[in-house]
Amino acid sequence: MINKKIIVTGCAGFIGSNLTDRLLENGHEVIGIDNFSTGQRQFLQNALNNSKFKLHDIDLLDFNSVKDIFSNVHTVFHLAANADVRFGIMHPKKDLEQNTIVTFNVLEAMRMNGVKKIVFSSTGSVYGESKVIPTPEDGPFPIQTSLYGASKVACEGLISSYCEGFGFQSWIFRFVSILGERYTHGHIFDFYRQLKLHPDSLSILGNGKQRKSYLYVQDCLDAILISLEKANERVNIFNLGFDGYVEVNDSIGFILNELNLNPKLIYSGGDKGWIGDNPFIFLDTKKIQALGWNPKLDIKEGVIKTVNYLKKNEWVFEERL
Amino acid sequence: MINKKIIVTGCAGFIGSNLTDRLLENGHEVIGIDNFSTGQRQFLQNALNNSKFKLHDIDLLDFNSVKDIFSNVHTVFHLAANADVRFGIMHPKKDLEQNTIVTFNVLEAMRMNGVKKIVFSSTGSVYGESKVIPTPEDGPFPIQTSLYGASKVACEGLISSYCEGFGFQSWIFRFVSILGERYTHGHIFDFYRQLKLHPDSLSILGNGKQRKSYLYVQDCLDAILISLEKANERVNIFNLGFDGYVEVNDSIGFILNELNLNPKLIYSGGDKGWIGDNPFIFLDTKKIQALGWNPKLDIKEGVIKTVNYLKKNEWVFEERL
Repeated sequence: MINKKIIVTGCAGFIGSNLTDRLLENGHEVIGIDNFSTGQRQFLQNALNNSKFKLHDIDLLDFNSVKDIFSNVHTVFHLAANADVRFGIMHPKKDLEQNTIVTFNVLEAMRMNGVKKIVFSSTGSVYGESKVIPTPEDGPFPIQTSLYGASKVACEGLISSYCEGFGFQSWIFRFVSILGERYTHGHIFDFYRQLKLHPDSLSILGNGKQRKSYLYVQDCLDAILISLEKANERVNIFNLGFDGYVEVNDSIGFILNELNLNPKLIYSGGDKGWIGDNPFIFLDTKKIQALGWNPKLDIKEGVIKTVNYLKKNEWVFEERL
Repeated sequence: MINKKIIVTGCAGFIGSNLTDRLLENGHEVIGIDNFSTGQRQFLQNALNNSKFKLHDIDLLDFNSVKDIFSNVHTVFHLAANADVRFGIMHPKKDLEQNTIVTFNVLEAMRMNGVKKIVFSSTGSVYGESKVIPTPEDGPFPIQTSLYGASKVACEGLISSYCEGFGFQSWIFRFVSILGERYTHGHIFDFYRQLKLHPDSLSILGNGKQRKSYLYVQDCLDAILISLEKANERVNIFNLGFDGYVEVNDSIGFILNELNLNPKLIYSGGDKGWIGDNPFIFLDTKKIQALGWNPKLDIKEGVIKTVNYLKKNEWVFEERL
C-alpha cells in the first residue's frame, strides 16, 4: 500500500490516533472521522499539523453526512466503536447503534462509492467464555456473554457477508486489550485514577486472579499493516494478542512498583470483575505469527509504558476524575 | 408449560401460524404479532375463531407501539423475520432492520416488562459454508456468507448477551428449510409456480446438485416444544433438521412425480444457486435427538406434503404470480 487515500474512523481514539500517525508517517493521505464521544483532539496534534490529514467531526450514525466522504478512498480502517465492555448492560442500545448500525453505515457508504477494502477492529470478547484456550480464530462457535462482544460479532457478520455479496475484501482483527501511549480506558486507567485519589487503597473487581493477555499498541499496528500486506483472502481474520497472559494481580504489581506505592488491596471477590467479564482471555496468535510478526514488547513492558504515559499525561483523567 | 400467556411474533407466517395453532390447541393464551409483510391472514383462520387468541397488526420496528403488549407474558416465541436469504443483497437494510433491530426491540420490550424466556428461530445459514458436515452446534466459528445469516448471528448474540446480562433464558433453534402446510417460499414454491406458468420447462438455479436438508413443520414444532420442556441451560442452542439430505435434483424428482409432469430441465449452472447460497446444508442433530425427539416424516414425505398443500391452496401464489 503506497500513498493511498485512507479513511480512519475513530481517528481520535487510542488506537485510531496511533494508526493515523503511522499511516501519515508512511506517506498516506488520511481522512479521519470521529464524533469525539470518547476521542481526544489532543491525540491528533501531530496529524492536524500534516497537510495530508483531514478531520471530519461527525457521527457515523448520520448516514447522510458521511456518505460522500468515502469517494475515491482506497481502504477504510473502521475503528470507531463503543469500546466499553463493562457498562454494556447500563445502555444496551449504545452497542447496537455505535457498533452494529454504524458498521452497516460504513459498509453502505463504501458500497455507494465503490470502496471495497475494509480493516476492522473486532475483539477477543467475541469468543465469550471459550472452552478452548488459547482460542484460535476457528475455535468453537461461541455463545456471546457481553453486548459488546455480541455487537462486534454482528459487525463481523455484516462485513463478511458484504465480502461474499458485494466483492469486498476485509481484514478483521480480534484484539486482546491494547496498552500504550494514549491509553484511556481499562484496568490500568481505573487503578491509576484510584491511586491518584487515594494512594493508600486500591479496589479490585473480582478476586484479582482473572487471567488476561495484553498487547502494546505499536505491536498491534505492526500486525495490522503486515497482514494487510501479506494476507489476501476475501475475509482475513486474525487474533492479535501477546503469546502469554498475566493475572490482574501481576498487573497490579507492575503498576505499584512503577508508582512506588503500597496500598491496601480490597477485592470485591468472585472470579469475574463484572457481569459479562471473561475471567480468562488468551488468544492463539499462531496465524498472525506465521506472517512473520512478533510483538517487540511483552505484557510487563506494555504495562510500564502505559503507566509512564499516564504519569506524563494526567490531563486524560480530567473529565473523568 | 401449562396454560400460559405467550407471545408469537410473526404469527401469520408459515411456521408462526402453525405454532400459534399448536399453542392454542395446548390450552395457552396466544398474543400474536405480525406486520403482514409476508404473513397471511388466512393462516390465522383457526386462531381468530379462538377466544384465547389476540392479534396485533403492528411492526416490531416501532418500539413504542409494541412495548406494552409484553406485560404479564410468560414466554416469547420470536419468529418474525425477513426470511429471504436469496435476495438479501438487493436490500441489505431489510435484514438489519427486520431481524437485528426488531430482535433488539423484542428483547428491550421483554426487559421493560420483566419477561425473561425467549424462543428464537435462527437458521443453519449461520454456519456459512462450514468445513464440518454434518455441522454441530459448536462447530468452527463461522464466516458469514449471507446478510440473512449475518443478521441471525447478530440476533443470537443479542439474545445470549441478554441471558448473561439480564438473567434471560433462551432456546435458539437453527433450522434447515422447513416444509409443510402454509409453506410460502423456497424452492418447492418457486418450482411449483414455474410449472403452473409453463408445465413444459423448469429453470433451476445452479447445477441441481446442491445438497440440502429439510424438516417437516410439525416435526419442527415437536422439537421446539420438547426442548422447552427438557433443556434448561441459560442459553439452549439446537440444530433442527432431518438426519439426512437430498440433492435439489432429488427434490425435483419428488415434485414432478407428484404433479405427473415431465418438463425440460434448464440449469443456470455452477455449484451455487445464487450469491451466498450454501451448496451443502446438513446439520448435526444429535443434540436434539438426545432429548428423545425424532422426526416423523422424512424429506420425501415432507416434499410431497408440501406439493399437495400448494395444489389445494393455489391462492398463496396469487400476489406473486
